[in-house]
Amino acid sequence: MPVFERVGLITKRGDERVANTLRRLVTFLQSAGAEILLDADSARTLPDFALPTAERAAIGADCDLVIVVGGDGTFLSAARSLIGYDTRLIGVNLGRLGFLTDIGPEEMAERMGEIFAGRFVEQNRFLLHCAVLRDGKTLHETDALNEIVVHKWDHARLIAFDTYIDSRLVNSQRSDGMVVATPTGSTAYALSSGGPLLETSLDAMVLVPICPHTLSSRPLVVHGSSRIEIIIRDGELPEAQLAADGGAVAQLLPQDRAVITKRSEQIRLIHPPTYDYFATLRAKLLWSRGA
Amino acid sequence: MPVFERVGLITKRGDERVANTLRRLVTFLQSAGAEILLDADSARTLPDFALPTAERAAIGADCDLVIVVGGDGTFLSAARSLIGYDTRLIGVNLGRLGFLTDIGPEEMAERMGEIFAGRFVEQNRFLLHCAVLRDGKTLHETDALNEIVVHKWDHARLIAFDTYIDSRLVNSQRSDGMVVATPTGSTAYALSSGGPLLETSLDAMVLVPICPHTLSSRPLVVHGSSRIEIIIRDGELPEAQLAADGGAVAQLLPQDRAVITKRSEQIRLIHPPTYDYFATLRAKLLWSRGA
Amino acid sequence: MPVFERVGLITKRGDERVANTLRRLVTFLQSAGAEILLDADSARTLPDFALPTAERAAIGADCDLVIVVGGDGTFLSAARSLIGYDTRLIGVNLGRLGFLTDIGPEEMAERMGEIFAGRFVEQNRFLLHCAVLRDGKTLHETDALNEIVVHKWDHARLIAFDTYIDSRLVNSQRSDGMVVATPTGSTAYALSSGGPLLETSLDAMVLVPICPHTLSSRPLVVHGSSRIEIIIRDGELPEAQLAADGGAVAQLLPQDRAVITKRSEQIRLIHPPTYDYFATLRAKLLWSRGA
Amino acid sequence: MPVFERVGLITKRGDERVANTLRRLVTFLQSAGAEILLDADSARTLPDFALPTAERAAIGADCDLVIVVGGDGTFLSAARSLIGYDTRLIGVNLGRLGFLTDIGPEEMAERMGEIFAGRFVEQNRFLLHCAVLRDGKTLHETDALNEIVVHKWDHARLIAFDTYIDSRLVNSQRSDGMVVATPTGSTAYALSSGGPLLETSLDAMVLVPICPHTLSSRPLVVHGSSRIEIIIRDGELPEAQLAADGGAVAQLLPQDRAVITKRSEQIRLIHPPTYDYFATLRAKLLWSRGA
Repeated sequence: MPVFERVGLITKRGDERVANTLRRLVTFLQSAGAEILLDADSARTLPDFALPTAERAAIGADCDLVIVVGGDGTFLSAARSLIGYDTRLIGVNLGRLGFLTDIGPEEMAERMGEIFAGRFVEQNRFLLHCAVLRDGKTLHETDALNEIVVHKWDHARLIAFDTYIDSRLVNSQRSDGMVVATPTGSTAYALSSGGPLLETSLDAMVLVPICPHTLSSRPLVVHGSSRIEIIIRDGELPEAQLAADGGAVAQLLPQDRAVITKRSEQIRLIHPPTYDYFATLRAKLLWSRGA
Repeated sequence: MPVFERVGLITKRGDERVANTLRRLVTFLQSAGAEILLDADSARTLPDFALPTAERAAIGADCDLVIVVGGDGTFLSAARSLIGYDTRLIGVNLGRLGFLTDIGPEEMAERMGEIFAGRFVEQNRFLLHCAVLRDGKTLHETDALNEIVVHKWDHARLIAFDTYIDSRLVNSQRSDGMVVATPTGSTAYALSSGGPLLETSLDAMVLVPICPHTLSSRPLVVHGSSRIEIIIRDGELPEAQLAADGGAVAQLLPQDRAVITKRSEQIRLIHPPTYDYFATLRAKLLWSRGA
Repeated sequence: MPVFERVGLITKRGDERVANTLRRLVTFLQSAGAEILLDADSARTLPDFALPTAERAAIGADCDLVIVVGGDGTFLSAARSLIGYDTRLIGVNLGRLGFLTDIGPEEMAERMGEIFAGRFVEQNRFLLHCAVLRDGKTLHETDALNEIVVHKWDHARLIAFDTYIDSRLVNSQRSDGMVVATPTGSTAYALSSGGPLLETSLDAMVLVPICPHTLSSRPLVVHGSSRIEIIIRDGELPEAQLAADGGAVAQLLPQDRAVITKRSEQIRLIHPPTYDYFATLRAKLLWSRGA
Repeated sequence: MPVFERVGLITKRGDERVANTLRRLVTFLQSAGAEILLDADSARTLPDFALPTAERAAIGADCDLVIVVGGDGTFLSAARSLIGYDTRLIGVNLGRLGFLTDIGPEEMAERMGEIFAGRFVEQNRFLLHCAVLRDGKTLHETDALNEIVVHKWDHARLIAFDTYIDSRLVNSQRSDGMVVATPTGSTAYALSSGGPLLETSLDAMVLVPICPHTLSSRPLVVHGSSRIEIIIRDGELPEAQLAADGGAVAQLLPQDRAVITKRSEQIRLIHPPTYDYFATLRAKLLWSRGA
């Protein structure tokens, strides 16, 4: 009996590279004796395999492991759709190392062999929940594994907003926006905006102002249990947009509130036994080379 | 005969503060023996004065001095509309020191007295011209005193573009966008984006990447005579927007080119004799106070 | 019986401002019925008061409250000398708001009244311990409330070192040095070096590279329980220096190891009931004013 | 008759890599019909060649080309020693691309062939002069091709100083120091300190504060003709050090003045015909790769 008995495969609509990687994965999983469940895109990519297909929710409910094939963006989407299920996730990239999809196609056979032999590292990663409130009513709800962003939209000018943590005012800010990132997201957009790196298991979030008008504004690291509230200010400045993991969620009007908290459910991320977060940082951020 | 014989007044649709400052200015100018020409908004703000009104172009052509009352945004708009006229410009703020509107209402009488007595500092400031080319045709043309910005638009994701200087590739970049600023604009959005300050009379522009994905991307200061070309890359990333001095100008599609050069005509900016750029920097950037 | 029965006073050799503040404090404490113990510098500053004097260790052992009068530097020194004692600390500044000395002389009477009426906020703050190892032997040991810094010394060139966290290599770096700061220290030198702000109660430390040669080096926030090891690299680059809370501790030679961990004992910091960390940040970093 | 008739060779005391590169260079130069003059270190590295040896000053006076073999540090030293001579300079690296030593050993034969065939790019680069004044007397004078730095020395605390440009106060600053860099030096220590890149032919210098206490302090780009004066402030803060191109020059006491100006003589830098500054930037700063 394999370590993982039922394995789901999630990918995005793919090219031949995706198909090739999926085929090798299916071959491996069948030889390992695992049942396989495909999502719609995987099934479309592998038309010649007669494998059962399921919705993501069913995959989350039925599989004890889900393998995501693609880039970090594909992984983020898969992770959000699997919140609340007890399954584990692995990311396989297509040739470009990702922070979340850290198994390369050339080493996939070896790494999967180790993992299915029970040798792996498991990490819990938390997600953010964001509710958008207008006049006391919840207009939108969304989740994010990397970050929630409030940013300017459709115009070239700053937005103005107040940030509260646990009902205490942090500051009133004019800027291009604000990133609220998990440790997982600290290597993504928050980093480009000038934020620090956070160890992945830290119970903390980081708020990173984007191009703030006040030059002394700085990233702020707060408890994971914090309730972060961003309130769009009244006035001549135009509306803002809310995005989760890089996808637009809602337009924000003056007085709208984005309330950001940690979700109670975490995702369970599987890495090969050789996983080393700092080695990934060194490789992705080119720390060992150059000028 | 006063130093300045014909004086234009430009403001934006204003409140009582604007009206009050305008009234005091008109009284001063009349006592100084200057002819006065109002723009439409100034005339609307001073309905009880029987003063001649003119289009901005006529103001530029007829006046040897134009006084702009308002914030830096009002000044930027006035300056762009007066390109090519030989008039001089002064900025009067409404209580909040600006980099361009550096005379406060409380000191206005004294400063104007000095200036009309011939004691002033004159600075030339250059502007940028930007042409947007698609399939070899010029779609849009615009000018900017502060900066031209190519930035992401209506979405939460990066844009991808190549930057050329005098036909040599600088780099291929994924980021939130790029600021190309004059020395005048180096204290505005370019500064929020992480750019350096440039002495106002420097014949140079600065390119500032906005939240670049490659962390080693840095602001680049180039000759004022440079021809800067930003070409939107093909691919899955969505379109970009072009803005001049904070106002949207055009949507940019893949392969569109924004060609940015220095305009040959400059504006002539008048400061009081006590003007000190570094003192303005210290005041605006709060260099002498705080932690 | 007052909330605090025995109160120690610590200051640095002071001028008339210090003496004046101390006198008012003594008057208040006597009227509140508290016993008073002076450190050597306080006694020298108040020669006309016949109050008992003690070593800092005795003050820590005997007093249930210690009031530090001066700047953040004086407070840091007092805090380090009181590690391991169960006393509480309050900081009173001399006119310049500090992050640690947050009670101003003008509000001292009112705030002390509140605190001695039992209305106060108590915060625990942790300290760092640093051991310098050479050839397996401990050469130096030191503590810091703000930060431990390894930095270049007596020369204009970079130093080279490797950083490990819990025995895993983070990176090999050439830079001016590295700051390892507590949340308390995140508003001090770490901030000037480009680090983020950390909520004061976060169980985390931040590593901030100082002027790193590799431009993609970034501040890294790690667990408070981390064991951080900085090892000076062999080679042509010259030796480094180790400093704790801004005071030089030791020269570091190639192969020397600075091992930094959290101390198990914390200090107990008392604030007035109106204390608000974010308000202090806004005041000290001038977030609400300027350009 | 070759393009360059008399060629000087400068290196630093070297290993076998240096000797090997020098030998190949000598062979090339002899076949090209050029006379060769060695500096002391080159002669020591090539003991078996009977080539004339000379002081650097004589090399500068007699040679129409000087080839520097080594890293950017060796080139900086050579360039400073050749100020005022009309010779040209080329830099050959030992395997690691430099901004100044941009010809690699593997391509040396081909590049030198092009250059001696008259196909090359020539750039003028300016240097800085710095005089240290105490009580009105000049204590030290030094030159720098990259940068002059005033920085803290032998202690872990900030220094305090005032900066003037053309006798106008810029600001009073507490920081780790200040870098004043040429365009050539903008890719060196100034870049690590947060400064912008400057096109190499720009007639400008950049002032970069090092870890400034005031978070809104920013790099400042000024005219090449500026007279920059840094005056150490009185007070409790300890003395500073002055360095030129990374080498210590002098201790600075309170009231000491470092006066920095552009030298009138420039160096003439030769690049291969394929030279592209932006390509060097892309290669050195790893702009085309990574996360």
